[in-house]
Amino acid sequence: MLTSEIIAIGSELLTPFHTDTNSLWLTEKLNSVGIDVKLKTIVGDDEARLEEVLKDALQRSQVIISTGGLGPTEDDITRKVFSRVLKRPLILHEDILANIRHLFESRGFPMALNNERQALILQNAQVLNNPRGTAPGMFIIDSDKRIVMLPGPPREMKPMFEEQVLPNLQKLSHGLRVKRKVLKVSGMGESAVDALIAPIYSKYKNPTTTILFNRTEVQIHLTASGSTDKEVERLLEELSNKLEEKLGANVFSVQGESLEEIVGRWLAVKQFTIATAESCTGGLIATRLTDIAGSSRYFLQGLVTYSSQAKIDLLGVSADLIEEKGVVSAEVAEAMAIGVKKKSGATFGVSVTGLAGPDGGTPEKPVGLVYIGLASDVEVTHKKLQLPGDRERVRWLASTVALDLVRRRYLL
Amino acid sequence: MLTSEIIAIGSELLTPFHTDTNSLWLTEKLNSVGIDVKLKTIVGDDEARLEEVLKDALQRSQVIISTGGLGPTEDDITRKVFSRVLKRPLILHEDILANIRHLFESRGFPMALNNERQALILQNAQVLNNPRGTAPGMFIIDSDKRIVMLPGPPREMKPMFEEQVLPNLQKLSHGLRVKRKVLKVSGMGESAVDALIAPIYSKYKNPTTTILFNRTEVQIHLTASGSTDKEVERLLEELSNKLEEKLGANVFSVQGESLEEIVGRWLAVKQFTIATAESCTGGLIATRLTDIAGSSRYFLQGLVTYSSQAKIDLLGVSADLIEEKGVVSAEVAEAMAIGVKKKSGATFGVSVTGLAGPDGGTPEKPVGLVYIGLASDVEVTHKKLQLPGDRERVRWLASTVALDLVRRRYLL
Repeated sequence: MLTSEIIAIGSELLTPFHTDTNSLWLTEKLNSVGIDVKLKTIVGDDEARLEEVLKDALQRSQVIISTGGLGPTEDDITRKVFSRVLKRPLILHEDILANIRHLFESRGFPMALNNERQALILQNAQVLNNPRGTAPGMFIIDSDKRIVMLPGPPREMKPMFEEQVLPNLQKLSHGLRVKRKVLKVSGMGESAVDALIAPIYSKYKNPTTTILFNRTEVQIHLTASGSTDKEVERLLEELSNKLEEKLGANVFSVQGESLEEIVGRWLAVKQFTIATAESCTGGLIATRLTDIAGSSRYFLQGLVTYSSQAKIDLLGVSADLIEEKGVVSAEVAEAMAIGVKKKSGATFGVSVTGLAGPDGGTPEKPVGLVYIGLASDVEVTHKKLQLPGDRERVRWLASTVALDLVRRRYLL
Repeated sequence: MLTSEIIAIGSELLTPFHTDTNSLWLTEKLNSVGIDVKLKTIVGDDEARLEEVLKDALQRSQVIISTGGLGPTEDDITRKVFSRVLKRPLILHEDILANIRHLFESRGFPMALNNERQALILQNAQVLNNPRGTAPGMFIIDSDKRIVMLPGPPREMKPMFEEQVLPNLQKLSHGLRVKRKVLKVSGMGESAVDALIAPIYSKYKNPTTTILFNRTEVQIHLTASGSTDKEVERLLEELSNKLEEKLGANVFSVQGESLEEIVGRWLAVKQFTIATAESCTGGLIATRLTDIAGSSRYFLQGLVTYSSQAKIDLLGVSADLIEEKGVVSAEVAEAMAIGVKKKSGATFGVSVTGLAGPDGGTPEKPVGLVYIGLASDVEVTHKKLQLPGDRERVRWLASTVALDLVRRRYLL
């Protein structure tokens, strides 16, 4: 595999407030054409340090991608330093200057003089047009090295790289194709997933398998390489099928969809509808369901019944039941689900009652205790959970289990 | 100011899935004792490259902090490479080994042999204890350099750095004190804020001022340095007061609180209550209000009335009004706010109706058109918005304006 490195330039990236997210996107794209990222450097608007970093990079990597530092101010040092290190003078391109001037005039401003800098191009560099901003990028072939200078703003950088750089780099890697497939899993922890599927994936060197956990779900990333798309897809398909067979209904998505998308799609296709009654999740299930465009087809209403009185008034839960069983109980969860289904006329009523904390727990009913209720025409069920973590995590996990409970209905 | 650099070690940090978040936290802490971060490098489990990076770092920085690569496997190269570059042999510490062995036994596992590696310490390094994991860190004084090796997992790294490293580094910077204060602003864009306050803050070299926008709010970061806490606080206070005076009611927080915290605190203090009626925000306002621990004191109920029928059934909005004015209208927003206030008995009813998109817009009512309603005992008002961005952004901005509208009630 070809090796590359990424240099992110800008003092704002060395503060506690900014992380370099450009490089994640670039890594994904470089990997997809068979180029490995071996190093990332984040350097401020600091000529001496950038010069040293660039010299090192030229020693060890075949492809060098920089982002940022191409603006019009004194702080924007990329052009100057790359010119010096690569020993290529900066040459003013009149046509680029005319473009920049035109852009300012069309916005009704005169062009400040320092913008002229953005029309300076390293000798023999290929100009990368920037229809979304003023600073053009550059692509340089220097013996066996490829050096790419991109602007910092993602909305300028991404299309420029994808349209004007990636096709060139793809040729460089002799048509090596790399593809990823992501399986998303619910209802199991990271290590349980690994224990179950390691005996299968460890037999494969290609694809490689990585198991990740984000706050939403466990993800299994398969990465395959080969000389044709068809070959790569076949490799992914073979391992993916084996893993899906092993994991069964726990795999909820194989094309990157979120849980709420998967649930929404099924409800829409079946012409089913849903309504929610939430206590400790405070509207999070409704928010997630309605995150999806077109959710008005299946989402009828959501009730956030935070107080006991609201559960009685809005959902028709009996005050005696709350008194007898407690507001955090299987019986109240089921009564809430029945109540919201009846009230809304939806196919499914889903409910949550629980203790998100940090206060309010007792030895019998500790923080993290959550009941999910689900009511349909044929049955009413509940699920009891004891969830770990802080308030935010308990709420998020509870909303995830609730959505997953709906999803698992259609597997029956 | 002293200069430092951070080296994050681990091949997983060179994938598209992981960003180095440790370094943001470390930057904040280093800045707080007057140490600047001048460079960050992310390197894989790659001895040659790490060696080169470390040698460069020793040339140019006074403080070098590494994270990661201290585990028990072959991939964990930090110990080996640092030993070689610093020319300090690795020495087995029997007491650390005994600790690690004990940790495994107490968990009921025998210790795998490769864990012995974690008891290897560079000659004359100070051992940094790791009560939350197996790998100890190291602190090395090498002529005028300080080299700190920390484990990668944040829950091990952070307390180790804060308790065992930071006090040492603070001495190094001769007691220089650096503090930050953050003002959060609503109801104005980043450039409007800058235009208003630049004439004030540009007169100050200390504190320095940075204006940031995240999806939640505009933030004004003031950073001051001095030789005593008192002096630094006085510097922050002086500029902060001037900016607050200029920005007036647009400043909603001066101690890091979120908008929902500020609103919640006011409602709780006044013993007021609130209820929500949401259409396009789908429960997001309720979710944000109930994110705050103790919100059950003031949050009574939330209704997500996504369909027109739900607005009629649950909120008592008249079908004729919806027919006449359209469901996205000032009149319906106000009727929703009145409806939920009446239904719940809350002090305030707040409502949202709008078009979050991407579909459903018309020339008269384009995507992004949102009406917020607010009903109290004394008046009913609404606010019309035309919001930019995609579905997620429109929903988020609408929920923010709704919360801010409640906040601004108490300024009257």
